[in-house]
Amino acid sequence: LTDFGTQDHYVGVMKGVILGICPDAALVDITHEVPPQDVAAAAAELAACYRYFPTGAVFLVVVDPGVGSARRPIAAEAGGFVFVAPDNGVLTAVFDEAPPSRVVTLAEDRFALRRPPGAGVTFDGRDRFAPAAAWLARGEALAAFGPAVAAPVRLEPVRMSADAAGVSGVVVRVDRFGNLITNIDRAAIERLAGGGSVEVEADGRAIGDLVRAYADAPAGAVCALVSSTGHLEVAVHGGSAAAALGLGRGSAVRVRRRA
Amino acid sequence: LTDFGTQDHYVGVMKGVILGICPDAALVDITHEVPPQDVAAAAAELAACYRYFPTGAVFLVVVDPGVGSARRPIAAEAGGFVFVAPDNGVLTAVFDEAPPSRVVTLAEDRFALRRPPGAGVTFDGRDRFAPAAAWLARGEALAAFGPAVAAPVRLEPVRMSADAAGVSGVVVRVDRFGNLITNIDRAAIERLAGGGSVEVEADGRAIGDLVRAYADAPAGAVCALVSSTGHLEVAVHGGSAAAALGLGRGSAVRVRRRA
Amino acid sequence: LTDFGTQDHYVGVMKGVILGICPDAALVDITHEVPPQDVAAAAAELAACYRYFPTGAVFLVVVDPGVGSARRPIAAEAGGFVFVAPDNGVLTAVFDEAPPSRVVTLAEDRFALRRPPGAGVTFDGRDRFAPAAAWLARGEALAAFGPAVAAPVRLEPVRMSADAAGVSGVVVRVDRFGNLITNIDRAAIERLAGGGSVEVEADGRAIGDLVRAYADAPAGAVCALVSSTGHLEVAVHGGSAAAALGLGRGSAVRVRRRA
Repeated sequence: LTDFGTQDHYVGVMKGVILGICPDAALVDITHEVPPQDVAAAAAELAACYRYFPTGAVFLVVVDPGVGSARRPIAAEAGGFVFVAPDNGVLTAVFDEAPPSRVVTLAEDRFALRRPPGAGVTFDGRDRFAPAAAWLARGEALAAFGPAVAAPVRLEPVRMSADAAGVSGVVVRVDRFGNLITNIDRAAIERLAGGGSVEVEADGRAIGDLVRAYADAPAGAVCALVSSTGHLEVAVHGGSAAAALGLGRGSAVRVRRRA
Repeated sequence: LTDFGTQDHYVGVMKGVILGICPDAALVDITHEVPPQDVAAAAAELAACYRYFPTGAVFLVVVDPGVGSARRPIAAEAGGFVFVAPDNGVLTAVFDEAPPSRVVTLAEDRFALRRPPGAGVTFDGRDRFAPAAAWLARGEALAAFGPAVAAPVRLEPVRMSADAAGVSGVVVRVDRFGNLITNIDRAAIERLAGGGSVEVEADGRAIGDLVRAYADAPAGAVCALVSSTGHLEVAVHGGSAAAALGLGRGSAVRVRRRA
Repeated sequence: LTDFGTQDHYVGVMKGVILGICPDAALVDITHEVPPQDVAAAAAELAACYRYFPTGAVFLVVVDPGVGSARRPIAAEAGGFVFVAPDNGVLTAVFDEAPPSRVVTLAEDRFALRRPPGAGVTFDGRDRFAPAAAWLARGEALAAFGPAVAAPVRLEPVRMSADAAGVSGVVVRVDRFGNLITNIDRAAIERLAGGGSVEVEADGRAIGDLVRAYADAPAGAVCALVSSTGHLEVAVHGGSAAAALGLGRGSAVRVRRRA
């Protein structure tokens, strides 16, 4: 999971480095189209999918605006998985769900690539993170990589807020289809509804009732439903809610108990 | 093969699910850039390539505008391959070439993912299609997945038409290079030519004779040739025919016997 | 490494062909977004990364404006790696660094795909290059593929030039982040500096001193540093130098000894 895009050799070379260390690694791209240096977007994408991977999977997350600075490279065990990333908060949402059992700094140079003479220090993805992920995938113990990190950096989470009248949240992901996925989870909606029904508002506009699936709304209609990750989603059946409503990341969404 | 794009975690999470079930699966992306919910485009792309894969390959095709509706998830054996897809016609072109020996509904829940509590029903790619493909790749028998489907949905094919004077067809794919690939096959051209030569017209404009390869036309010239899939293709040597001619999917192309 | 993009089945079908010949091949995408038919761009991208792959890796490079013409398909051993490509100069930068120990024409049809009847000759990536790469990955000896090539085609390299006052070069790659990577290497800068300091100019505009990492420049500031491949790079900390300066491939960059 990176913000490297796919036009350059950056992702491919990291895979080359990994296969040199761990030849039988199975490599999966989550996405490389995180907006450049957008740590919060990467954190949301990772949180949406990590738990569907096989236990023991190593996640290599390189969205690293601080490359070359004093920010620490870290590795962590959490929820039965291993994560390798810069210590910039990109693992916040994972750690919220699955408190890490161990976090270490990637301090041991023997698990880093020896840069060729003359190469610069701008690509820790290749030189430090990918090799560490490969050694971890080979079974090297986390504790061998460096000293423990007591308090990894966390992003200030954008939490939904609930009161008696409703639940308020924001759009945290806009996907390829223009679906607007929020940070309001199903449990909060069910607590609010209490067996009754709810109505949804996006940026002050009424979206209407919740449907179960896109196909339950008329074609072209804006609807609200529970997303594949269990969060409130605003969508258009057969179209783009982002385009239809002119909304995006950060847009306010509210759920109200129907009177 | 999906319309999921690559900006979200959707393709990656399907691969994570597959590797959890079938750890030694070799995963190949055909493309994920099918225009959103364009079943016909996906059908054309699949038809262009499936027969080059190793016998026994499992094709996972998720272009699924009806997700969550009553449309059936199916799996099929055809031409020595296995296909997993929604029953919406996306396998039409494959079935035209290689009549399926067996088609079943994916009815057995034991081959589906148990959704985490709270997750919605909008992502059958992750929850139903990917697990089924993985179990099939592991060697599970098709018949175990559910009851037989007698008549899978088929798209109305856009066929070429031939008369004594010529063959008429349409552009069915426009590729990255701007090549315009039609549904007119080489056999139809050869029948028409009968040893003589033919001339090609695209949207009423004369393209000229057939050449064997791009390099046989002058640089920058529009030409017609037989594509890598055996169909009439309109191209520009070193450029984009789509841009040069202002044509695209659905544009009319005609081949005439030269007088 | 191709210019095929990812919207079509072209890359996927090459992988299908490879896995049919060499089922346990580990497949890595370097990039498929080389600008269409831009051999020099592909050469630069390959040169930037090949040496980080495991020894023995087979590089399949298909940027092939001459497909179907008399240009030769070749395979080469160089630097402990194997390369498969059209003989159009795309391996120039590799051969400059690692003179090839053997180059052959891919002449033997038994290592090519038997095209289905009717298929055209426009896709040597699928029909000739991918099968050859797969047979080589399986361990087939290079000499078995065809006769030796004495003088593979080379591109005229765009070299930096140095005089007593400075080193002049050009931008050879612009990456996703808008970083401008030049052909001026660190050794040339160090020879020029001779223990003193240098200043950098891009398209006549002063960029200032070299920094070690992006993070060493103020946020939003244009800076110059040594790239991950060991070349002078002009960047903006947290932004795009290409956008900020309006520069791109071919733009002139000069390093001067500070007075």
